[in-house]
Amino acid sequence: MAAYGSFGSDNHAGVHDAVLRAIAAVNGGHVPAYGNDPWTARATEQLRDLFGAAGGVYFVFNGTAANNLGLSLLLRPFEAVICAESSHLNVDECGAPERVLGSKLLQVPAPDGKLTPELVARRLGGRGDEHRAQPRAVAIAQVTELGTCYTLRELRELAEFCRASDLRLYLDGARLANAAAHLGCPLRDLAAQADVLSFGGTKNGALGAEAVIVMNGELGGEAPFQRKQQMQLASKMRFLAAQFVALLEDDLWLRSAGRANAMAARLAAQVRGLPGVQVCHPVDSNAVFAALDADHIRKLNRDWEFHVWDSAENVVRWMTAFDTSEADVDAFAGAVREVTAAT
Amino acid sequence: MAAYGSFGSDNHAGVHDAVLRAIAAVNGGHVPAYGNDPWTARATEQLRDLFGAAGGVYFVFNGTAANNLGLSLLLRPFEAVICAESSHLNVDECGAPERVLGSKLLQVPAPDGKLTPELVARRLGGRGDEHRAQPRAVAIAQVTELGTCYTLRELRELAEFCRASDLRLYLDGARLANAAAHLGCPLRDLAAQADVLSFGGTKNGALGAEAVIVMNGELGGEAPFQRKQQMQLASKMRFLAAQFVALLEDDLWLRSAGRANAMAARLAAQVRGLPGVQVCHPVDSNAVFAALDADHIRKLNRDWEFHVWDSAENVVRWMTAFDTSEADVDAFAGAVREVTAAT
Amino acid sequence: MAAYGSFGSDNHAGVHDAVLRAIAAVNGGHVPAYGNDPWTARATEQLRDLFGAAGGVYFVFNGTAANNLGLSLLLRPFEAVICAESSHLNVDECGAPERVLGSKLLQVPAPDGKLTPELVARRLGGRGDEHRAQPRAVAIAQVTELGTCYTLRELRELAEFCRASDLRLYLDGARLANAAAHLGCPLRDLAAQADVLSFGGTKNGALGAEAVIVMNGELGGEAPFQRKQQMQLASKMRFLAAQFVALLEDDLWLRSAGRANAMAARLAAQVRGLPGVQVCHPVDSNAVFAALDADHIRKLNRDWEFHVWDSAENVVRWMTAFDTSEADVDAFAGAVREVTAAT
Amino acid sequence: MAAYGSFGSDNHAGVHDAVLRAIAAVNGGHVPAYGNDPWTARATEQLRDLFGAAGGVYFVFNGTAANNLGLSLLLRPFEAVICAESSHLNVDECGAPERVLGSKLLQVPAPDGKLTPELVARRLGGRGDEHRAQPRAVAIAQVTELGTCYTLRELRELAEFCRASDLRLYLDGARLANAAAHLGCPLRDLAAQADVLSFGGTKNGALGAEAVIVMNGELGGEAPFQRKQQMQLASKMRFLAAQFVALLEDDLWLRSAGRANAMAARLAAQVRGLPGVQVCHPVDSNAVFAALDADHIRKLNRDWEFHVWDSAENVVRWMTAFDTSEADVDAFAGAVREVTAAT
Repeated sequence: MAAYGSFGSDNHAGVHDAVLRAIAAVNGGHVPAYGNDPWTARATEQLRDLFGAAGGVYFVFNGTAANNLGLSLLLRPFEAVICAESSHLNVDECGAPERVLGSKLLQVPAPDGKLTPELVARRLGGRGDEHRAQPRAVAIAQVTELGTCYTLRELRELAEFCRASDLRLYLDGARLANAAAHLGCPLRDLAAQADVLSFGGTKNGALGAEAVIVMNGELGGEAPFQRKQQMQLASKMRFLAAQFVALLEDDLWLRSAGRANAMAARLAAQVRGLPGVQVCHPVDSNAVFAALDADHIRKLNRDWEFHVWDSAENVVRWMTAFDTSEADVDAFAGAVREVTAAT
Repeated sequence: MAAYGSFGSDNHAGVHDAVLRAIAAVNGGHVPAYGNDPWTARATEQLRDLFGAAGGVYFVFNGTAANNLGLSLLLRPFEAVICAESSHLNVDECGAPERVLGSKLLQVPAPDGKLTPELVARRLGGRGDEHRAQPRAVAIAQVTELGTCYTLRELRELAEFCRASDLRLYLDGARLANAAAHLGCPLRDLAAQADVLSFGGTKNGALGAEAVIVMNGELGGEAPFQRKQQMQLASKMRFLAAQFVALLEDDLWLRSAGRANAMAARLAAQVRGLPGVQVCHPVDSNAVFAALDADHIRKLNRDWEFHVWDSAENVVRWMTAFDTSEADVDAFAGAVREVTAAT
Repeated sequence: MAAYGSFGSDNHAGVHDAVLRAIAAVNGGHVPAYGNDPWTARATEQLRDLFGAAGGVYFVFNGTAANNLGLSLLLRPFEAVICAESSHLNVDECGAPERVLGSKLLQVPAPDGKLTPELVARRLGGRGDEHRAQPRAVAIAQVTELGTCYTLRELRELAEFCRASDLRLYLDGARLANAAAHLGCPLRDLAAQADVLSFGGTKNGALGAEAVIVMNGELGGEAPFQRKQQMQLASKMRFLAAQFVALLEDDLWLRSAGRANAMAARLAAQVRGLPGVQVCHPVDSNAVFAALDADHIRKLNRDWEFHVWDSAENVVRWMTAFDTSEADVDAFAGAVREVTAAT
Repeated sequence: MAAYGSFGSDNHAGVHDAVLRAIAAVNGGHVPAYGNDPWTARATEQLRDLFGAAGGVYFVFNGTAANNLGLSLLLRPFEAVICAESSHLNVDECGAPERVLGSKLLQVPAPDGKLTPELVARRLGGRGDEHRAQPRAVAIAQVTELGTCYTLRELRELAEFCRASDLRLYLDGARLANAAAHLGCPLRDLAAQADVLSFGGTKNGALGAEAVIVMNGELGGEAPFQRKQQMQLASKMRFLAAQFVALLEDDLWLRSAGRANAMAARLAAQVRGLPGVQVCHPVDSNAVFAALDADHIRKLNRDWEFHVWDSAENVVRWMTAFDTSEADVDAFAGAVREVTAAT
């Protein structure tokens, strides 16, 4: 079951050695709990600098928690979040936003997973009408759930629309590193448009750590309390901080994400054009979405771990990670070639 | 700031070497996420056996989450939890139970942190009266927030009372290992009376992992969904499981807790009888609560990290951990001796 | 502003004289509060009989509350409700379901406001997957938000599908009286398929009273507590009960709803075929949805109160009430005729 | 069962004739729903004037709803409410505050039901500590649940303490009319100290209507949405407004409350000094709390409706209403005299 070379998810991968070393390195002796330790201070400061954040940085355990903590800083329960129908927030969090925030998600079909001012505008009806949940935040993901990236221009236009429309912008950055690698831009350029965002470590070689970063200095005073009440305050915080210390060292986060992206691009290049294989979305990050014959999917799935994204449409997701090798990709692409040629 | 020998909290300690090794040991290659890996299966099975659990085992990130997940299996929002006024659940979770469960906590003053049938009975008024939140669960901690332990007989009597009174029993076992070490009894004897309980790893040498254990086989079908919606599902679950694998190996959990307890007993023995020092509660685990002169507290606190528990009553908490040494204790007790003699 | 003859909504109407008389009639002297009075007992018994309910009847203040109380009997927070995108529950309750239930609404586009087994089936993906809110209830409205009615056969097929799919059926009956009048069938035939439903009084001549009716005898034990916690327990309950006593007397509910329906049919008949006027949905109850020229809408709206349903599509809603007269309809239809002829 | 002369509760009484007349008087024709009618505008304006409110006035259905709506304007879920242990908010709302607000109630034992700066100060520990729910609002009732009234000076001192302590003050005024009658002061003097308060109609001769009054002009912008999401928006609002129109006409609210108070005073005067009868609290309003022999309670309860407040302490509550007559009181006091003399 366990093997290098799964294409199931970037969280099927383990932990980068540098992260494990950093965890071990902070393990000497007693230090105050709950973040009052030097490594948390250091990782926080580094992240604030890197992102140009006017507010604080709050480590949490996973991506669902990061999204909910981030949004909780922006919303009252009668206020709603506009998000893509296909977003993790809407689909993959078992209703956490509804329960934790008490807020409605106003969903927008977005074929490539990306919101636009036009799509957001469609959900702005009913503002000021007490019968309607009031649109207050727009939640996007960069990378999106479909592996696509907003360009900087798209981000900027959306953010401008939000500001002009009295909407706050939350950015789910579980795979922000992959977006930065794809776009070749500093994290602060990606973050500049958001009020609050998350920066994921787990899918990029960490053991389990995400950062909620408050860009807008007027927000975030309540973040420590929200984090605790949302059950996300780590007592031995230094071990979350250490993961980010390792990721930030010599831009490990960027190199790891760049490698994962490159492996997805390599895979896409090899399978594009194979008979009956259709790559569905731009491969902007570390995921290849492809449609292929149901029977071919079944055969491939016998030996290779990957996710059938949409069984009705026969779409699969092949995902690479920081530790995916060229050999992994070539072997897998070979298997796809074989299976699709076999008909 | 960081130094061996803090008496601040067992979560000021780092991670036991064996736990770190176990984390590294499971780090080879890709495995399915969210607990579909062999180590989660193994740790789950071991814990079910050890506890005699008819239901499942669910790993979560911290103690607050364990308590809320556990209780969520027992309650509807109009149902209430009877708990000690001094309990972690009531005092130290920033209102997580109220927000996550929507339930009222019916608090009982309990001088030594322990509930009794008599104390619980006081909060049973209003059953069947739609104006009142309906008592449905009793939440106790073993070890309590005041470092005391229920005897097996006390546990049994409380559990019998609960069963006879149509109340479910939840046990917060963040320091259950310390209780088992103190009482010298198997975990299953401690757990047998509860419907659901938690078993803490973090305060006993883990990096950050707690187990919610469903004893009552009729409950728990919804635990996977509750855990996810409560933002506690780890994607790289194997690294939580590995921590328990290490703790269970050769009873590391028991030896570590036993050592912490022994160090607290050693400290209590050395400070008892010092002028103006009063040990406040039975030292049943790894905490010594003591009252001493406010000025002495101030002086001690300059060089030693510990928690002023009640500044009005001049009560402090001195806590030992799995890695506290005899030398640490002796040095600290010497400091107490010096400070209290100095007047 | 106030005038007989508004076509704005059935809740723009006042209270039927018989209802006012009933309120006055129960006003003698002191009686126990919170429903322990003879009129509540009587109205409850009458409604249980009329609906063939195995469970209880619970009066609440308004339709939003009825929907949320009803659904709260069917759901845990990680469970979801499948409903029409256009439903009152989804659109017009300011996010009450999300906040009160903590549950996600799984929305289905339904052109005529009605769910079908096929539409419901589309939202059943992800059952058993802990990442997904679990579909547990289907919520329909009879009459729908678009004024259409399910036939008895449609209802039965949907209910059979729900039973076969382990889904519970909730029916929002804010205008159930209008559906019964339209279909010419007993209330119990409409209710038989639901686990829980509401029966609206307010839109049918009451002052403000709705009944939540528990059909499924296994549910509902918690309804009194849920109602109180949801802030819907009336202290002077007799005055809510009296409204239903009046509505049930000599089938006032049916006669009033029948009249409202007839007036809508009369209106539809008069405007159908006018130049540029398109009636959008079957007129199964007391609402006429029509598309007409934006300029015509503006002109009509100067003198007549009605709701612009969809300003993008130039759809209006003309609604009749228990007290709408033939003269009202004829005058209004005349105005439509005039305005649309004028171009 | 129903009879003039119950001493069970002021909500056992019916509706004042003037209120019924006002309801009938606004019943002509169609008017916009949800408060866009002239009577809502009029009652709102009158109440704003009477209270000197800088913010709005929001009608809701009952007292539990008024308290929760009011507090929801003052709190985030991690913020807590300091209240008396015996308060309606804490005891009699089936956990609505916890569910609706997500907030913890920090309870204070208050022998006479009244909070003081000293009592409030005891619950201010842990501010700024992320583990603790953060005290943010103080909730008092005027009249308290024990029938006592704050003097204007007590109110002022408490309010000053709140302002100096960055706490907001909410006042549950379900029986505010009785307090105003007792203190002989204008409502605006009672209200001046609060940020938000409720003004009860139901217990003072209304059918079912309470007003939430926002004194602090910086708050309340979200009140319309909170009210709707909390399921308290009446569609036929004019009938709630009409009740206040009637209560405000010629100070009916004051005369009714004054009469109820006078009847309680008359009763207290007659039973004080009877053998074994002990009046427990100052009779500042329309309730007499008395301790008497358990056997006497039983005998009295055969013929007279009243509430056994504390069966352990043999305390009963005898409550008068706007329609209690001297003859009622004298008959009941006679019965008490007879029963207590009989031993």
